[in-house]
Amino acid sequence: MSVTAAAGFLAAGVAAGIKAAPERGGAPAPDLALVVNQGPRADAAGVFTSNRVKAAPVVWSEQVLRGGRVTAVVLNSGGANACTGPLGFQDTHATAERAAGILGHSAGEVAVASTGLIGLRLPMDRLLPGLDAAAAALSADGGEDAAVAIKTTDSVHKTAAVTSPAGWTVGGMAKGAGMLAPGLATMLVVLTTDADPGQGPLESALHAATRVTFDRIDSDGCMSTNDTVLLLASGASGVVPDRAEFAEAVRRVCADLALQLIKDAEGASKDIRIEVTGAASEDDALEVGRSIARNNLLKCAIHGEDPNWGRVLSAIGTTSAAFEPDRLNVAINGVWVCKNGAVGEDRDRVDMRFREVTITADLAAGSASAEIWTNDLTADYVHENSAYSS
Amino acid sequence: MSVTAAAGFLAAGVAAGIKAAPERGGAPAPDLALVVNQGPRADAAGVFTSNRVKAAPVVWSEQVLRGGRVTAVVLNSGGANACTGPLGFQDTHATAERAAGILGHSAGEVAVASTGLIGLRLPMDRLLPGLDAAAAALSADGGEDAAVAIKTTDSVHKTAAVTSPAGWTVGGMAKGAGMLAPGLATMLVVLTTDADPGQGPLESALHAATRVTFDRIDSDGCMSTNDTVLLLASGASGVVPDRAEFAEAVRRVCADLALQLIKDAEGASKDIRIEVTGAASEDDALEVGRSIARNNLLKCAIHGEDPNWGRVLSAIGTTSAAFEPDRLNVAINGVWVCKNGAVGEDRDRVDMRFREVTITADLAAGSASAEIWTNDLTADYVHENSAYSS
Repeated sequence: MSVTAAAGFLAAGVAAGIKAAPERGGAPAPDLALVVNQGPRADAAGVFTSNRVKAAPVVWSEQVLRGGRVTAVVLNSGGANACTGPLGFQDTHATAERAAGILGHSAGEVAVASTGLIGLRLPMDRLLPGLDAAAAALSADGGEDAAVAIKTTDSVHKTAAVTSPAGWTVGGMAKGAGMLAPGLATMLVVLTTDADPGQGPLESALHAATRVTFDRIDSDGCMSTNDTVLLLASGASGVVPDRAEFAEAVRRVCADLALQLIKDAEGASKDIRIEVTGAASEDDALEVGRSIARNNLLKCAIHGEDPNWGRVLSAIGTTSAAFEPDRLNVAINGVWVCKNGAVGEDRDRVDMRFREVTITADLAAGSASAEIWTNDLTADYVHENSAYSS
Repeated sequence: MSVTAAAGFLAAGVAAGIKAAPERGGAPAPDLALVVNQGPRADAAGVFTSNRVKAAPVVWSEQVLRGGRVTAVVLNSGGANACTGPLGFQDTHATAERAAGILGHSAGEVAVASTGLIGLRLPMDRLLPGLDAAAAALSADGGEDAAVAIKTTDSVHKTAAVTSPAGWTVGGMAKGAGMLAPGLATMLVVLTTDADPGQGPLESALHAATRVTFDRIDSDGCMSTNDTVLLLASGASGVVPDRAEFAEAVRRVCADLALQLIKDAEGASKDIRIEVTGAASEDDALEVGRSIARNNLLKCAIHGEDPNWGRVLSAIGTTSAAFEPDRLNVAINGVWVCKNGAVGEDRDRVDMRFREVTITADLAAGSASAEIWTNDLTADYVHENSAYSS
């Protein structure tokens, strides 16, 4: 599992002291991860936040990825290095330089990713020595440690892997529990593979996968300044994979990690799968799905185990999708509580006791469909985000 | 105050039994209001929800307003009559017919507005007799009773009035605490005037006023199926008002009511005024203001009295407005905590103890500006909307 499931990768996760020390003493939390690609290939693809306010490491790593080669990734929790001005960018640069120096690489091939508080400089006096410690701890079994070190408010670390009968593997790790949104989340994801697909297939596989996975989870509609998803190929298996099989493996790992992110969203008590069917186009289905996913009133109702289809209809009504109001149908957990825009089957038949809730919205306007995942809105979400400055 | 502040209007509010009886006994809650225009004029203007899923009374009243004459308005709480199909529309029609029959008017001049649960038929066996009772109770002092009868989760009833030295008055009442959003709210508003501005000036005054008042409050980003704002002119003062003075009076009454709505939003503990300045256009300023107003993470932070300017920047970053990230400035309660996209003045200087919070976002891209009001996101909002099916 994790980023060391594929051959040719080393990883480590250490406590550098970037996060504040635990108030009651005890061991400091891991907060610095290092992933190294030993090759023979160093092909890489990346997808970044579409927020126009980008953190320094995003600006840096976008530049690195333009070269198409990544030999190492440094990731830290405990600070986003966003809205930190030119000095913050220098900090990212210095981080890449230090990693390159230790590893004997070029800084231009070292990607950097950060997550945590916006608007604070990173403690470079602790981060840089931590990088030395991480390099010393690098191991072919270090993937789990790295996944733990990138956690912020995540309750568990998140890893996944898929192995092909053809002899190659795609693995990965993810963090992100708060600002999940379309166009990605405060989501740091590193995927690795020992396949050797070549640069073009690598990039197309990553873009196709994120479009239907990370881009279709929407926890709270808020988009981060730091989202980063990287896919590194070592080619260590020596196998050039079938292009479609490789793309499907990347999609499966992304889907696995995306679902783990939603299930660990801040304060959530329900995982909500929104299926939009009968749409005139996939774009219509997505617009409707996102509108339902972002409706605070509906998310509160689901929290209260109330199959409130009226709030689904009022969310659909705000979109520009093709539909007629008196032809809309809505099922909650399989019970068609709304038929033709009005009362349908008895809402008391809807069983809302379980964590997973499925809302099906049939637009009766075509044959396209899409699926979006979100979660409920809870008092715990409010508490967590009132007290935690991020 | 209220809808009977202007001459020529009668109103009443009664308990018809549309709302469920109080669980612990006691007097039933008022839930049916009637407003009658005695003329001599019956000019009227209306603005309705832009939600494509419209309640039956909205469909009916839009049709009535096309005729430009309204002699009476029937409003009920306790049921939205939305998503109720053709039978629901028949109920609205029957309501207008009954009111017209009692009052000796034409049903085509009787507007209807409803608020409450979506997807339930109204109890017409109680509503129609209630209408008889309301007609019997009509009074030139009935404006307050009418304002009370349209409350749903409102903690207080809301009225306002402005009187011109020229001898005419604009008064009004409003309800709406839950689904406040741009393009209006679950907001029922009836405004009345005894001025005689004529149909054109009446319509332009209402549209100009709602655009900068009700359309600029955004409590939870959710748009209702039932929003209705009506302005009725009796002409009873005999005065043709100055067009600009009349428009300003309508704007002032709308602004007063809009602020009352935000201050009574469900679960809110902070009223948040968002000023966007330095925008390249008013549209840019509005887009940025709404994006800030809808950011759940920021609304939680304000609830926690955390002057979290990073969340303001990440909300601005999701818009298409003209700005450069490294030129953005943000003040919270007058302290410029973010300058040039990075750390500004000491955030500890921001005093967040009071209910009103002002967020100023300077885009440094022009000279246009706009103001949007919202409120914080609280555990009380979640509780109220988890338990209350609407």
